[in-house]
This record gives sequence, structure tokens and C-alpha cells, in this order.
Amino acid sequence: MKLYDLELSGNCYKVRLFAHLANLDLEIIPVDFLGGEHKRAPLIELNPWGELPILVDGQRVLRDSQAILVYLAGTYGGAAWWPVEPHLQAEVMQWLSTAANEIQNGPAAARLVDKFGYAIDKADTLKRAARILPLLDAHLAKHEWLALSRPTIADCAVFPYVALAPEGGVDLVPYPHITRWMDRIQQLPGFVPMPGL
Amino acid sequence: MKLYDLELSGNCYKVRLFAHLANLDLEIIPVDFLGGEHKRAPLIELNPWGELPILVDGQRVLRDSQAILVYLAGTYGGAAWWPVEPHLQAEVMQWLSTAANEIQNGPAAARLVDKFGYAIDKADTLKRAARILPLLDAHLAKHEWLALSRPTIADCAVFPYVALAPEGGVDLVPYPHITRWMDRIQQLPGFVPMPGL
Repeated sequence: MKLYDLELSGNCYKVRLFAHLANLDLEIIPVDFLGGEHKRAPLIELNPWGELPILVDGQRVLRDSQAILVYLAGTYGGAAWWPVEPHLQAEVMQWLSTAANEIQNGPAAARLVDKFGYAIDKADTLKRAARILPLLDAHLAKHEWLALSRPTIADCAVFPYVALAPEGGVDLVPYPHITRWMDRIQQLPGFVPMPGL
Repeated sequence: MKLYDLELSGNCYKVRLFAHLANLDLEIIPVDFLGGEHKRAPLIELNPWGELPILVDGQRVLRDSQAILVYLAGTYGGAAWWPVEPHLQAEVMQWLSTAANEIQNGPAAARLVDKFGYAIDKADTLKRAARILPLLDAHLAKHEWLALSRPTIADCAVFPYVALAPEGGVDLVPYPHITRWMDRIQQLPGFVPMPGL
């Protein structure tokens, strides 16, 4: 099973983190992102969107970090991480959408500006971060983990770009419940960090 | 089963559309959106995010249109719309992320500016639409439906804000495969439209 990977990508880190937590074997294939390797053949044929990560498992090819988490957890990780009951899947799904939208376009996008010089409206990213982080903090004031009473792929999907928020100039000190949740994640057996954490 | 609903919301329409296609009974509860009913009690207690739709099924309360689709399809709609195999769920999931991020922040956000006067950077929404729609069109050149060989909740999640794109000044004429896919959706048994389609 191959993961086409960029070490500094929080989206790639979602997958590496989950693979470590669930003790899965992944062959990590570093991609020359600055050289645009993901924008040309053969990678652009694996993912026409020109994005990382890409997972290849035999004949199966997946883009989108959330979809890769569903695949890995459902296929190899067991129901602990991605339940089989639809009403529990829906609880997790709420946070996969949050990871794909509010977190990606908030703290993750702020980091793209500050760390990688992307031409994105920084003020807009900060406004989005200032909306989502208090909602996340309030939720975590009442819940140990995001979706269920145990860690799931919801936590793996939301954690990376929240934890990396300071690299985008977003201060996490005002959010004590987020901070304690991040501590809990970092104490999970098998946890691995990434640069910037 | 109650859906707190706004008729003009494409996110609410995702759920109404699916319920019709899968022949589910939903009690539609119109919300006074302009009056801010979703921002105060009791709705803000059901969804602290202050957004619609909200689904209430007995003791279960869900926000996020994608999560609601997973719940309804998995619980009541049968495996046709949301498969049980993780590798097929992952195929669908790729498009649920697309609906939550690229479609929401592209064509859907462009419509929010033009139709409802939201203070969003219109140029940014058009740029995002101009990236995602050709990718969608190229995918649909080779696939009848988005995720599997049959319609799934992926199609229900992506269709509304693509079909409504002209209300945001986004022309769909350059995308013949999207147009034909929209025709196929509109010919499904049980299809219902919404204002603007």
C-alpha cells in the first residue's frame, strides 16, 4: 500500500497519523512537490486534481484525505476508528466535512499563506478560523473526542491543521479545551508528530 | 423525522432531494432564516453552528448536509445510495468532501454573493468554480455517475450547487458532461426540483 506523500502537508499527515495509530503498514513515497511532480504524469493520472495525498492499494487509487481515512479505517483499521452503524458514521461524517471545509479554509489556509506564500486572502482565513475554533472548543468542553466516546478518524482528520494553526499566525491559547484534546491525541499509543507540531 | 429547512438553501435541498429519490418521509419545518431563527434557541441548541439543515430523528440530531445524507441513506435508504463496503464508501466520500469544500466555496459561494448579498470575495469564488467544474466535467466524461456505476448520495451532495451555479453568474454551457449528468439526475424516479433550477 503506497502513500504519495508530502511531509509538510497536514492532509498527508492525517493519513500517516492514522496509519501509525492503527498500526498499518504504509509505503511512504515522498513527492517532489516544489518541482511539481504531482502536477504531471504519472501522478496526475492517479489524481487528476493534482493534489496530495494519493493512496494506491493494488488496483485501488484514492484522492482526498478524508476518503483515504474512511478506506483505511473501514478496510484495515477496524470499527473502533470508523464504525459500521450508519448513525455513528454520520457522527463522524459531521467532522470529516468540518475538516474538508472549515478547517481547510480556515487555519490550514492561513498556514499556506504564512508558511508557503500562497496568494490567499489571509484576513478571510483568519475570519474563518475565528469562527470555527470557538465552536470546536465549545464542543470539546463537553466531549473527550470529537465524534464518539473514543477516538475515531474524525479526530485524525481535524487534529493536524488545528495543531498546526500557530504556523498560520492563529493562537490556540484562547482555546483550553482544544489544547487538552490535542494533548489526549498526542498521548495515544502509536502517535507520531510532524514538523511544526 | 424532522428537517429544519430553508427552501432556497442548496444544502437543505440535498436532503429533500435524497428523501424524495429514496421515498423517505420527512416532516419539513420551514425556518425563518432572514429573521435569524436558526441563530437563537431552540434551534441554536440543536445546531450550535447556527446553520441549516438540521435533522432530528427521535433523540438523534445531526448538522451538516453530508452527514445527514450518510445517516438517511445508511439507516433508511438502503445500500444502493450509501454502500456498506469501505472501499465503495471511500469512493463516495471523495465526492462528499468535494461537496463540502470545492463546491461549497466555489459555485455555492458565488451564488451567496449574487443572490443573497453575502460579503464574500466574488472573484475568489469564481476562481474556485473555474477550477472544480472542469475537473468535474472531465470525470463525468468517463463516468455516468460520480462515485459508483449507479447514483449515490455523492450525486445528491454535488448536484444542487452545481445546478444552481448560474444563479452565481457561473455558466455551465462549457461543461457538456456536467449538463448531461444533471439531465440524468433530473430523470431519476422521484426527482424534485427547487427554486432556481
